Amino acid sequence: MKGEQKVTIRDVTGRDGFQSLKEFIPSSKKLEILSAIGAAGVKNIEATSFVSPRSIPQLRDARELVPKLPKNKIQYSALVPNSVGAMNAIEAGIDELVLVISATNKHNLANVRRSVSESVRDLDGIFAIAAAHKIVVTVDIAVSFGCPYEGDVSEKALFNLVDTFANKDAKRIIFADTTGMAIPNQVETMVGKFQNDYSQIDLGLHFHNNRGTAMTNLYVALAAGATTFDTTLGGIGGCPYVPQAAGNLPTEDVVYMLEEMGVHTGIDLELIIKAAQSLERELGYTLPGQVMKSGPRDPATAKKICSFNDG
Amino acid sequence: MKGEQKVTIRDVTGRDGFQSLKEFIPSSKKLEILSAIGAAGVKNIEATSFVSPRSIPQLRDARELVPKLPKNKIQYSALVPNSVGAMNAIEAGIDELVLVISATNKHNLANVRRSVSESVRDLDGIFAIAAAHKIVVTVDIAVSFGCPYEGDVSEKALFNLVDTFANKDAKRIIFADTTGMAIPNQVETMVGKFQNDYSQIDLGLHFHNNRGTAMTNLYVALAAGATTFDTTLGGIGGCPYVPQAAGNLPTEDVVYMLEEMGVHTGIDLELIIKAAQSLERELGYTLPGQVMKSGPRDPATAKKICSFNDG
Repeated sequence: MKGEQKVTIRDVTGRDGFQSLKEFIPSSKKLEILSAIGAAGVKNIEATSFVSPRSIPQLRDARELVPKLPKNKIQYSALVPNSVGAMNAIEAGIDELVLVISATNKHNLANVRRSVSESVRDLDGIFAIAAAHKIVVTVDIAVSFGCPYEGDVSEKALFNLVDTFANKDAKRIIFADTTGMAIPNQVETMVGKFQNDYSQIDLGLHFHNNRGTAMTNLYVALAAGATTFDTTLGGIGGCPYVPQAAGNLPTEDVVYMLEEMGVHTGIDLELIIKAAQSLERELGYTLPGQVMKSGPRDPATAKKICSFNDG
Repeated sequence: MKGEQKVTIRDVTGRDGFQSLKEFIPSSKKLEILSAIGAAGVKNIEATSFVSPRSIPQLRDARELVPKLPKNKIQYSALVPNSVGAMNAIEAGIDELVLVISATNKHNLANVRRSVSESVRDLDGIFAIAAAHKIVVTVDIAVSFGCPYEGDVSEKALFNLVDTFANKDAKRIIFADTTGMAIPNQVETMVGKFQNDYSQIDLGLHFHNNRGTAMTNLYVALAAGATTFDTTLGGIGGCPYVPQAAGNLPTEDVVYMLEEMGVHTGIDLELIIKAAQSLERELGYTLPGQVMKSGPRDPATAKKICSFNDG
């Protein structure tokens, strides 16, 4: 991996990061956190979900939050489970809709009480609304690399779904490793196949760290040609339907590693570290992120911005 | 990375893992933990240090511990700082001596109050003792990929040391990323150069996770031809002279990832996970290891051996 490379970081703190937190974060605080992410240079922010307040009470303020988000050339997306959610999201001024479907029936049933093929049909309504409003659609395929109920996910099953949504004009498809089952060889194969067969669609990768492989999987996906990665501040988050799911890749750790490799993220490392540290103070417990504790490589900067640094 | 590949896991729980723990672990408990590591199939175990009890009180029982370690075709090594330590280690029945020197003067001064060139001379006495007793010597080069005091470490400085110890008949040289400053590109370059110029010497890699890159660095080192990696149960450890140094790579996470990639470690994943879980119970706090919490990919096995699994 040499030369000028650029990647897109999709920060999903507002959705995947917050959704599993029990204690309600006031909208004003959410706005502060998401604004800090944007101010650090993140241009793709998944800000919330337009779901039923009963299913995810934490995100019940989506309709109030979205109109207040600072514009500043940022593409804001939100997860929408159905046509009502899609309409609400568009009314609130969202730029991009994110639809979720699982690669396996058992996970889809656990998640939305529908089979995969029922979900595929349901999502047609959202595609129609998006088209009518000229809004971009991203499809997030949960448990793409392995399912906590069914185990292995076949390449065929995964790419059948990719095919389906490629034909429905999805702008981006995200392979989500919902419970951290992806292994590097598998990521290499799946990303390679996608890049080969669906070069017109942006491929996103969403890795969780349940088995310690998330950053390595990102590295391998990048080497295989992927350029869009989901992350959260401090690595918070996890699917609320999967007990003990470990966090996402920390935005600041990813920015650190990629920038040190000469890959441009457009994100200011110091600002994103400070945003993660501020989130940690707000939540009141230690987050999984590492660079927010140790600081960047440069000893002087590390000393300046991290209370606990190496030197 | 395809085909039959084999790697050597050097478990350093007994040395790098224990040395920074404040509360003394009784020798019988240390023996139990190291025996469990061996019983899981680890054949290279860095068991302790023969250092002054004043400098590392936790390892003051080295002379009692080593003779009790179960043989079972396991190569036991110990860190020795000087000739007295080397003699004590050999008397206790150790199979391999590990010498430590830093890649930078400032770190070496902080660690052993000597310049690098003074340390190089000091270590000659240990090489002579090892040769007289036909004992293998491993040289561990601390801060190989970056120094918390000096910042970047030049390739030239690092390979000058490699050259020095290659000429002194070191069997193995370990590049230690003492404070987690290694970045993948750098690992690729350094490992490539070593494999190219010193193919007669085994190269070990010792990564810490201060900045979230440890597993990725291992992956890259493996791809560049390295086959020997230092790890600890649950990822415990860190240099006691470097405040807030994050842990080592968790043995069980490395075994999990490599075996899933088809790379043979010779280590039983379930047994090494159970050893890590048992260490966590002994220490009484959550360790950084991930697979010990989520279990292997197979949902049924994960349910069986992990109280908190995904499914």
